[in-house]
Amino acid sequence: MANIRVELSPRDQATREAIIAELTDVMVKYGSPRESTQVILFEVSHDLWAKGGVTYTKRMQQREGTA
Amino acid sequence: MANIRVELSPRDQATREAIIAELTDVMVKYGSPRESTQVILFEVSHDLWAKGGVTYTKRMQQREGTA
Amino acid sequence: MANIRVELSPRDQATREAIIAELTDVMVKYGSPRESTQVILFEVSHDLWAKGGVTYTKRMQQREGTA
Amino acid sequence: MANIRVELSPRDQATREAIIAELTDVMVKYGSPRESTQVILFEVSHDLWAKGGVTYTKRMQQREGTA
Amino acid sequence: MANIRVELSPRDQATREAIIAELTDVMVKYGSPRESTQVILFEVSHDLWAKGGVTYTKRMQQREGTA
Amino acid sequence: MANIRVELSPRDQATREAIIAELTDVMVKYGSPRESTQVILFEVSHDLWAKGGVTYTKRMQQREGTA
Repeated sequence: MANIRVELSPRDQATREAIIAELTDVMVKYGSPRESTQVILFEVSHDLWAKGGVTYTKRMQQREGTA
Repeated sequence: MANIRVELSPRDQATREAIIAELTDVMVKYGSPRESTQVILFEVSHDLWAKGGVTYTKRMQQREGTA
Repeated sequence: MANIRVELSPRDQATREAIIAELTDVMVKYGSPRESTQVILFEVSHDLWAKGGVTYTKRMQQREGTA
Repeated sequence: MANIRVELSPRDQATREAIIAELTDVMVKYGSPRESTQVILFEVSHDLWAKGGVTYTKRMQQREGTA
Repeated sequence: MANIRVELSPRDQATREAIIAELTDVMVKYGSPRESTQVILFEVSHDLWAKGGVTYTKRMQQREGTA
Repeated sequence: MANIRVELSPRDQATREAIIAELTDVMVKYGSPRESTQVILFEVSHDLWAKGGVTYTKRMQQREGTA
């Protein structure tokens, strides 16, 4: 059995479902029974997620030269 | 002390409060001081939560024969 | 369905099993199917868990007047 | 490297960014490379977060004598 | 970017590395930059992990008719 | 109130306590009552933690030219 949690940027529903299906396939391939494999996606706002002490919102603005 | 986190389907506020109170009672019964026992509920959308590689939204549609 | 995670101090196996059973009963009472209800216990060392900026190891020593 | 997750009450964006920057500085001071240090803030509703078996919404009402 | 966390039964190191590599490939396929994709595996003891209110240790014993 | 969780490489106890104290100070500075601020450190093995699809154990070996 396996529980997969993913923190990621927002995606459309079709992409969410593809990610879920393919992550599940990986765990099943390595021995987790399919019906005992869960996935939960946590779509995190770039205002609340930071690397290097700076939110992704600001990092992207800086990369685009708009801030 | 104890920190309880629950991932669950959305509930109304009265049910949330009943769940919180009763989960807390269990931990207190087994030695956690009441005021050092936390509960956080995470109500997860069925579009983002999957079992067997399929979201709960789709699983429920399939069970109801509507998809 | 529900996933319950608990951070707690170490317990013996009989107590772990009682906690797991009773937390599960709460979620089942409020609508989670029993076989879709998971519990994971995380027994956290008091050297790594702190309140008020002080580990529980030190807090307990201070309360006992040994530190 | 370090991943910091914080469950907290909602804050305005300027405060979020100050918290993120200063938490990151602590980890960098103790050896985590800055660009390998992440922070994610989880702003939790007081309707879903409880201590002592009572939501923070109710605890605050009780403290204010309005409930 | 993406952070993947997996709760699973213990695996040998070669299997851990295969799981990590393939989960990462899924997220990269759907737009997460490879060097901004993390995986952490949490290998959970079957004494601490339960479904249906019963630890996996006991569930497996029951299935094998030894308990 | 605030709950801080940190995934990090193993540290000695003095460093753990310094990290805990200073992370707590940040949250207190921004309004979290000190005695309602928790920290838990999760020291993650480099065999179980990966970036870019490769464990940190292997990444460090590669950087040192020993693998």
